[in-house]
Amino acid sequence: MSGLLGRPLKVVNAGVELFAGELERQQAEVARVEWRPPADGAGEALERLATRAAETAAANDRAVVAMQAAEPRVVGIGRAGDLLPGLDERTLLHAGPPIDWDGMCGPLRGAIIGAAVHEGIAADPEEAARLAGRGGLRFGPCHERGAVGPMAGVVSASMPVWVVEDGASGNRAFCTLNEGLGKVLRYGAYDAEVLDRLAWMRDVLARVLTAALERLPEPLDLRALIAQALQMGDEGHNRNRAGTSLLLRALLPALLTVEEPTADVVAAAEFISGNDHFFLNLAMAAGKATADAAAGTAGSSIVTAMARNGTEFGVRLAGTGDRWFTGPAGVVDGLYLPGFGPEDANRDIGDSTITETIGIGGMAMAAAPAIVRFVGGSPEDAVAATLAMYDITWAESSSYQLPTLGFRGTPLGIDAREVVHSGVLPTVNTGIAHKDPGVGQVGAGLVEPPMEAFVAATRALADSPTA
Amino acid sequence: MSGLLGRPLKVVNAGVELFAGELERQQAEVARVEWRPPADGAGEALERLATRAAETAAANDRAVVAMQAAEPRVVGIGRAGDLLPGLDERTLLHAGPPIDWDGMCGPLRGAIIGAAVHEGIAADPEEAARLAGRGGLRFGPCHERGAVGPMAGVVSASMPVWVVEDGASGNRAFCTLNEGLGKVLRYGAYDAEVLDRLAWMRDVLARVLTAALERLPEPLDLRALIAQALQMGDEGHNRNRAGTSLLLRALLPALLTVEEPTADVVAAAEFISGNDHFFLNLAMAAGKATADAAAGTAGSSIVTAMARNGTEFGVRLAGTGDRWFTGPAGVVDGLYLPGFGPEDANRDIGDSTITETIGIGGMAMAAAPAIVRFVGGSPEDAVAATLAMYDITWAESSSYQLPTLGFRGTPLGIDAREVVHSGVLPTVNTGIAHKDPGVGQVGAGLVEPPMEAFVAATRALADSPTA
Repeated sequence: MSGLLGRPLKVVNAGVELFAGELERQQAEVARVEWRPPADGAGEALERLATRAAETAAANDRAVVAMQAAEPRVVGIGRAGDLLPGLDERTLLHAGPPIDWDGMCGPLRGAIIGAAVHEGIAADPEEAARLAGRGGLRFGPCHERGAVGPMAGVVSASMPVWVVEDGASGNRAFCTLNEGLGKVLRYGAYDAEVLDRLAWMRDVLARVLTAALERLPEPLDLRALIAQALQMGDEGHNRNRAGTSLLLRALLPALLTVEEPTADVVAAAEFISGNDHFFLNLAMAAGKATADAAAGTAGSSIVTAMARNGTEFGVRLAGTGDRWFTGPAGVVDGLYLPGFGPEDANRDIGDSTITETIGIGGMAMAAAPAIVRFVGGSPEDAVAATLAMYDITWAESSSYQLPTLGFRGTPLGIDAREVVHSGVLPTVNTGIAHKDPGVGQVGAGLVEPPMEAFVAATRALADSPTA
Repeated sequence: MSGLLGRPLKVVNAGVELFAGELERQQAEVARVEWRPPADGAGEALERLATRAAETAAANDRAVVAMQAAEPRVVGIGRAGDLLPGLDERTLLHAGPPIDWDGMCGPLRGAIIGAAVHEGIAADPEEAARLAGRGGLRFGPCHERGAVGPMAGVVSASMPVWVVEDGASGNRAFCTLNEGLGKVLRYGAYDAEVLDRLAWMRDVLARVLTAALERLPEPLDLRALIAQALQMGDEGHNRNRAGTSLLLRALLPALLTVEEPTADVVAAAEFISGNDHFFLNLAMAAGKATADAAAGTAGSSIVTAMARNGTEFGVRLAGTGDRWFTGPAGVVDGLYLPGFGPEDANRDIGDSTITETIGIGGMAMAAAPAIVRFVGGSPEDAVAATLAMYDITWAESSSYQLPTLGFRGTPLGIDAREVVHSGVLPTVNTGIAHKDPGVGQVGAGLVEPPMEAFVAATRALADSPTA
């Protein structure tokens, strides 16, 4: 039906027309973003880029072809300190662009505190906070070590990480194992329950899963699992019930035969089965391995990373290498757990926007009408959100399809120029952390990244040398 | 949002309006059934029933409330001969209304032959056919023993059956275990591969599953599993990938600890995992237990069974007890496996229409846009098919919801009067068996039941005494 770029589908799909037409007729009722004039100063950058449009198009084709070709597969689980460059005992990685202790939000500080105690660097939370405050810890973005982390995204040396390899490019990506919802480190909680769970994940869960993965006849094909999950009501970011179920199904024969104590295997299986979000971290590692395949494509305006540290949102383009372009992290519009409200919410946080970067998550909400029970809105809003994303993407996924849109490929390859030109920002759905350290999750919802990050990235691309 | 009858949702749902309006505008393109005048002689029956409309409405409310209240749960697996009344070694049950050997179609004959050899009544297929031909076997509908069977639906004494109990009414329903697709007994195949599989299912699979079910802390809640599966792209008849995945997930801890040989447990797990249709037979048993809760409701025009033996389609109403009203089984319009075409197809066959009877399957195709890859058509057709069903149903399910229609309850309680009056027949999706015995599955598609069965049922209801 389509080549690796997947663009022919754009014009042949009747299902999309059906929806789009109706949505336009009812525009007052739906959440489509109106066109806005290009942000201040962006017009000049867009004009300069217009003079090299053919070169950018060729670069974007190359970047998107690399993402389409990616074959992310789980090749194992390892210790972060052994796998991630320069991750020593005193270094803690975090989500989003670089930030120091003074700039960190509450939940990121909470996760840093918890991880420091988990690693034994500090005896208790107070000591951890003091140590961090006087410069006794080193920090760095996950993204700069080939990793991604949900929410606070803190990774410390002893933590187990999924190792995902892109079979096409050979590059590797890493992500921690998902802790579940509620009071968990990634939402900034660090009490005994949180630390006990982290220790059990390191000592038991990782061992059982490693043994199970070793028994599989071939590495788990994440592209195939995500593709199936999108046919089963997941969008791969905040709804992962199908992905988690399919993962367990794929691991089942191996779990039945691993040579590990039965009680440990049962505990591992029940832990995974009890957490519909367990698959998220695999989708994120798949996203990182996929997006990295496009990273460094000179001249390309395609986004290769979007990430938030709870204070700032950062974006990277294929054509601007490892540079971050930032703006203030957004305020999430969402649903709250009982007893919490918007006044408790931290700003947008986490590397999980790597899912949107590869055309799933918020970009693929049309796949997951039931997501609205988690993030708010109506199923029509979810469809409208996906439809709007085709305006700012370069291609349509050849792997990930949307049944309700007549199997149209998901919007793939966010083009920073189009974001700036149209004023349409990528749709992101996300969990909401409490703004104070030590509390945890308080809700989930939708959020817009800051336009200035895309403007800055577009300017930098316009400044970059032509081929 | 709605009481047990679930009807308030009919008027408040914006999602449905969105779709319905668009569909009406594009009517030429979609598969909605046009109104047709009532079938011959039906007008008089409808007129007589109109004089007792209030009585019928009250009876229909009772029938539908009983279906809404049903809580089908898996209480175990047993030997059919021990559980189903009068199922001795020489009696073979089949799908659909009663039929004798001379009237049986090819695939039903094939399944009878295979079951006779499986039971050891005959030494080989030739002897089985001779025995059947000279009256040496007894036949009867599954439905008349509390059971249901997919496709040919043949049940013999030694076969294991799921035992499903409605926690509300206490009534029990039975269904065999699913064999997988292709060359299988229920599609009329009976070669050594088929018979070996049946023996293994009886000797190993049933033992492992029985042991696993015994370890569950509480019986499997099929209503909850089906409800989840409908949020995950299943419709519960011809798409059961989510149901099968959720079943495995629910059984996982039990499978890890059951005291059976590991090789048997692994074989059982791989067999189930290798067959996305495995959950179908549980959905069917849940359907039978649910529909039977409404059976025998005097004066009610609600359908409590639809079943086909490959020659005739039969329907039962709540208000007409155990009587069957029949017409010729339909010709399926569908997709064929490579090498096969419409000329190979048997007519519509199987008890699996019990799923449509409780508002899932073809009635809930809007839940499963990906079903069209199996049965043909487009995702828009699937939505249109479900929308048309609200015209002939009495209520909307309070358990089973359709995310793409704004979580509207599925169309529940087919009203035979409305079928006859509107000319809209229930939408059924189904597998297609080869017309010859011994071959197996050749495709899958959509089929309409015969109107005359509904006309005959409506007439009989009009003839029944008033309260």
